[in-house]
Amino acid sequence: MFQRLRLRTTARQELVNMSGEVREVVASSGVKEGLCLIFCPHSTAGLVVNSYLDPLTPKDITAEIDRLVPTRVDFFHTVDTPSDAAAHVKAGLVGIQQLLIVHDGKLLLGHSQGILFAEFDGPRDRELYVKVIEG
Amino acid sequence: MFQRLRLRTTARQELVNMSGEVREVVASSGVKEGLCLIFCPHSTAGLVVNSYLDPLTPKDITAEIDRLVPTRVDFFHTVDTPSDAAAHVKAGLVGIQQLLIVHDGKLLLGHSQGILFAEFDGPRDRELYVKVIEG
Amino acid sequence: MFQRLRLRTTARQELVNMSGEVREVVASSGVKEGLCLIFCPHSTAGLVVNSYLDPLTPKDITAEIDRLVPTRVDFFHTVDTPSDAAAHVKAGLVGIQQLLIVHDGKLLLGHSQGILFAEFDGPRDRELYVKVIEG
Repeated sequence: MFQRLRLRTTARQELVNMSGEVREVVASSGVKEGLCLIFCPHSTAGLVVNSYLDPLTPKDITAEIDRLVPTRVDFFHTVDTPSDAAAHVKAGLVGIQQLLIVHDGKLLLGHSQGILFAEFDGPRDRELYVKVIEG
Repeated sequence: MFQRLRLRTTARQELVNMSGEVREVVASSGVKEGLCLIFCPHSTAGLVVNSYLDPLTPKDITAEIDRLVPTRVDFFHTVDTPSDAAAHVKAGLVGIQQLLIVHDGKLLLGHSQGILFAEFDGPRDRELYVKVIEG
Repeated sequence: MFQRLRLRTTARQELVNMSGEVREVVASSGVKEGLCLIFCPHSTAGLVVNSYLDPLTPKDITAEIDRLVPTRVDFFHTVDTPSDAAAHVKAGLVGIQQLLIVHDGKLLLGHSQGILFAEFDGPRDRELYVKVIEG
């Protein structure tokens, strides 16, 4: 089963918890045992699986990545904004896909893990692709 | 086939080679051609596939990640220790899953590649999920 | 379907667009709906999915990763060159595999996304493994 999800990010940088939406796709797929791929088709955003329990953890992750790759004017890529140029590097670091296990018809995530869409150059309309296969 | 592996890490930060344990799961699955997903259900640990030949390479990897994301007291997330807060960011950077090819009944790894569990806030009891599918 | 691709990198660090070669493997597999794994069997190189439209974006990515993990003489791993030691860390950060969706017989990539082989210690002869499964 293949499905597109839409979301609207609301800040330049943020991690948006999409676990509920992905769980719905898995439930509607009817797959009991298999794999679920979440794929981000953008190059200035990515995907992180990490703790959603304390909203300050996602805030630490975006703040630290911003500290590691500061938005500034000396990037080679200058067709877009400095924020866009930095966002490409950030997406390259965290990655743009996550593969999860489907077991007993449910996504197998650790108790604190959420599927977090990583916006690095928002706010924007974004998409996620979800693919569920049996196996 | 789906199986849980347990391990005990022995330091605050270390890369633990789990290749042998994962190879056993692949062998016992009976799958000849397919994929093998290794998934870390924690949010202060991750998974790296890199060289195990010289133990100093895994030591470089943890030391460099520690230099990039130093343990300190100015994280937003303060419910746990500074080491825990830093570990969330580190896990976000290296990722929490690795997908490998099964060919001729064996895991297809480069000659120097090992499957390394990345502990960022140990020592602790940890788990890994391994899923092997045919295809 | 499982296939090996060969490439020759031409610089110490560069991102090489392999999207065309991977698309050919997908086409020759005959798979209409499924998944495509691209796996790098090296530990001083990795794989990034990001924008190929402006060649300066890949240049930013390698330059920034080089800034974050500078080539220098204080790595623990000294059997090889400092460039090799740094490359292991860089590969650990960006990762060594990418999983993509096959839909309607084609790789589903965002309009600006390319599959970029990340050389961190070239120039060298390198390999990529491509695995296409139905599902």
